[in-house]
Amino acid sequence: MPQFLDTTADDFELAFAALLGAKREDSPDVDAVVADIIADVRSRGDTAVLELTAKFDRLDLTSDQLAFSSDEIDAAIAEVGETDRLALELAAERIRDYHVRQMPSDDSWTDKTGATLGWRWTAVSAAGLYVPGGLATYPSSVLMNAIPAKVAGVQRLAITVPTPDGKVNPLVLLAARIAGVDEIYRIGGAQAIAALAYGTKSIAPVDKITGPGNAFVAAAKRRVFGKVGIDMIAGPSEILVIADKDNNPDWIALDLLSQAEHDENAQSILITDDVEFGRAVADAVDARLETLERRAIAGPSWRDYGAVITVTDFDQAAELSNRIAPEHLELCVADPDALSLKTVHAGAIFLGQYTPEAIGDYVGGPNHVLPTARSARFSSGLSVMDFLKRTTLSQMTPAALQAIGPAAETLANSESLQAHGLSVRARLDTLNE
Amino acid sequence: MPQFLDTTADDFELAFAALLGAKREDSPDVDAVVADIIADVRSRGDTAVLELTAKFDRLDLTSDQLAFSSDEIDAAIAEVGETDRLALELAAERIRDYHVRQMPSDDSWTDKTGATLGWRWTAVSAAGLYVPGGLATYPSSVLMNAIPAKVAGVQRLAITVPTPDGKVNPLVLLAARIAGVDEIYRIGGAQAIAALAYGTKSIAPVDKITGPGNAFVAAAKRRVFGKVGIDMIAGPSEILVIADKDNNPDWIALDLLSQAEHDENAQSILITDDVEFGRAVADAVDARLETLERRAIAGPSWRDYGAVITVTDFDQAAELSNRIAPEHLELCVADPDALSLKTVHAGAIFLGQYTPEAIGDYVGGPNHVLPTARSARFSSGLSVMDFLKRTTLSQMTPAALQAIGPAAETLANSESLQAHGLSVRARLDTLNE
Repeated sequence: MPQFLDTTADDFELAFAALLGAKREDSPDVDAVVADIIADVRSRGDTAVLELTAKFDRLDLTSDQLAFSSDEIDAAIAEVGETDRLALELAAERIRDYHVRQMPSDDSWTDKTGATLGWRWTAVSAAGLYVPGGLATYPSSVLMNAIPAKVAGVQRLAITVPTPDGKVNPLVLLAARIAGVDEIYRIGGAQAIAALAYGTKSIAPVDKITGPGNAFVAAAKRRVFGKVGIDMIAGPSEILVIADKDNNPDWIALDLLSQAEHDENAQSILITDDVEFGRAVADAVDARLETLERRAIAGPSWRDYGAVITVTDFDQAAELSNRIAPEHLELCVADPDALSLKTVHAGAIFLGQYTPEAIGDYVGGPNHVLPTARSARFSSGLSVMDFLKRTTLSQMTPAALQAIGPAAETLANSESLQAHGLSVRARLDTLNE
Repeated sequence: MPQFLDTTADDFELAFAALLGAKREDSPDVDAVVADIIADVRSRGDTAVLELTAKFDRLDLTSDQLAFSSDEIDAAIAEVGETDRLALELAAERIRDYHVRQMPSDDSWTDKTGATLGWRWTAVSAAGLYVPGGLATYPSSVLMNAIPAKVAGVQRLAITVPTPDGKVNPLVLLAARIAGVDEIYRIGGAQAIAALAYGTKSIAPVDKITGPGNAFVAAAKRRVFGKVGIDMIAGPSEILVIADKDNNPDWIALDLLSQAEHDENAQSILITDDVEFGRAVADAVDARLETLERRAIAGPSWRDYGAVITVTDFDQAAELSNRIAPEHLELCVADPDALSLKTVHAGAIFLGQYTPEAIGDYVGGPNHVLPTARSARFSSGLSVMDFLKRTTLSQMTPAALQAIGPAAETLANSESLQAHGLSVRARLDTLNE
């Protein structure tokens, strides 16, 4: 039974604040273990990686076997059926088409002083992508991380994917192949992050690491941040659906469950202006839960973190949505475009009843790596920008320096930075001779 | 005496690697202290902030006095002379003009399936800017942080600046006024970061915190990251100058010293193809050091971390530059544009001999908050993007869902995410009825 909230109730603010503040993350403190693993990989390189892989993945490898060979990849890929392959190819094509449009432009202009200013975008040289192994191995995540990197122009893209007992998901290898990944290593955990960040004899270091992982991987990413760039540390998934009564309750129920089935800590919230519709959706969730394969996960998520909120109008819904700042937001109302202009803090918005969130997980085109835990207030989903950096450019002419140099000298002196001022003054004195 | 390196020497690789790897940061471990301060501010709010301010800044305040009043700001600003004011206004105008051009565009398009895709950029609602107090209080940094936030559209911009013994730099208040800052609080340290991140009775919480600070501030920013967004944690400043012999050695010496005077841990490197020119610059540095006000800082920086590297040609210089990935890069060569195309990992590039780096610190237009410690390999300087976030948008039509929905269902099932597949299937079944 999820919570039922009503904005007209006296205790609404209290209940809503509790819903917002619910701590859904159980992050075990693995930092000390991770620090040791990173130090070990830094000092002993391949040897440490191989020992840790034998220990955690029950897999004995030599340095030569750390990377999948092209033949091994071919053999695994050959197992994939045509339906799966075509679906992955369609997804890749659509993700690529979307992300190509994100490529930012360089700029350069000359201002009225004669100074030429601008900037230039360039790609990160090498990136590493962590792919979880075992049950929760998602080929779609390989596409969502690897394609933006390749679109950005990353020259060397390496994947690490643990293969416990030697088992690998052929679809992960196929997704990597389709996305143009250059190297695939059969390692995981904090040791994989350490190897990517610092390099070993067999694994060259990268400049940026992205991709989801367990608590060990997350802690390792936090630790190597600064040495390399990292993407966000993602929390449990969330969806907010804003729907009026002209929706099929079963469709909305399935959308809520498609987040709930990810994780017991996932959160699914419905906001509606019709209390009866809210009840109907909750009933539909219960009905679907009876037969859902992952009901042991989706059930507790819905029971513990699910909510149905009744509002007086959709302006109020937008206001609550902005306070929630959801990772995924579905707008199933008569005019979703108008409502979307008011819901400004959200990772991804899905407009209209024919756009279930699951479309965005696979084939819509936009990225499915999105800000969780209210961080859509200040951050964005993964994009080509995560694999690019911008260099600013400026070039003064003598005239430009004469026009603006004195102000720089004044400010440098006001900050007691004499050499700064002198570097301008020495040039001005020569020009004024 | 800086190091002299020569790429033709047998031990060059070793010496260059040592230069790259030199640990210049002395970051005292203040994390435990900072954790306590943050917990204290979270639980006791204003009271904790006021007590810590009395303790660290020797300043007794009431809650009402935490913020500067408009009258107090007016009075302080009245002390600023016209030359300083005009210089700040010119700087602000040029920084604003540059950053306005960085504003990214929204996009929306309809693909061949009929699906409408796109994204929309929106501003962070509230941002906080940390401004160091005491000696190293830089009004230019106020402009460089506050203007991009206001250009991005941040509605509420708060500054915290500690005022030890009640002393404040009027130029900081003037810079804040010029930049359009909305609130200024006379607090600093980890307690200021905690107040901005979690809010107190007198200080509303923000969504993003930027700005430089000491080890306590940096540790606090790391700790509140996730609850709010933060900018980079900046290390000691760096400059790399690539110059041929057709330069005035004294100008180049001053450019090197303008980084060295920031911090004993700053690093200034010259790369030249002419060994005599390199010697001449080193001599000029020594001569300038004799009279430089901050020679007690610049001298040790140049001695301990400075370097003059002789290369055989400028392609080699570009290659070394990319390995250094400098925060600031000056290209004082005959064709700086051509060389800049090869130096792809740099925070900011200054082209030609009339563009001393100090111009970029104040009045050039580009931001002076730039990636240090080789992080220009994967990150960019501060920009309007730091105060914006992107929401992706997608809307399927029935036809679009029929075209791509089956592939989503296939991939969902391959990942054992049944509800994901069903959320698509339920809609397709209705459409196909």
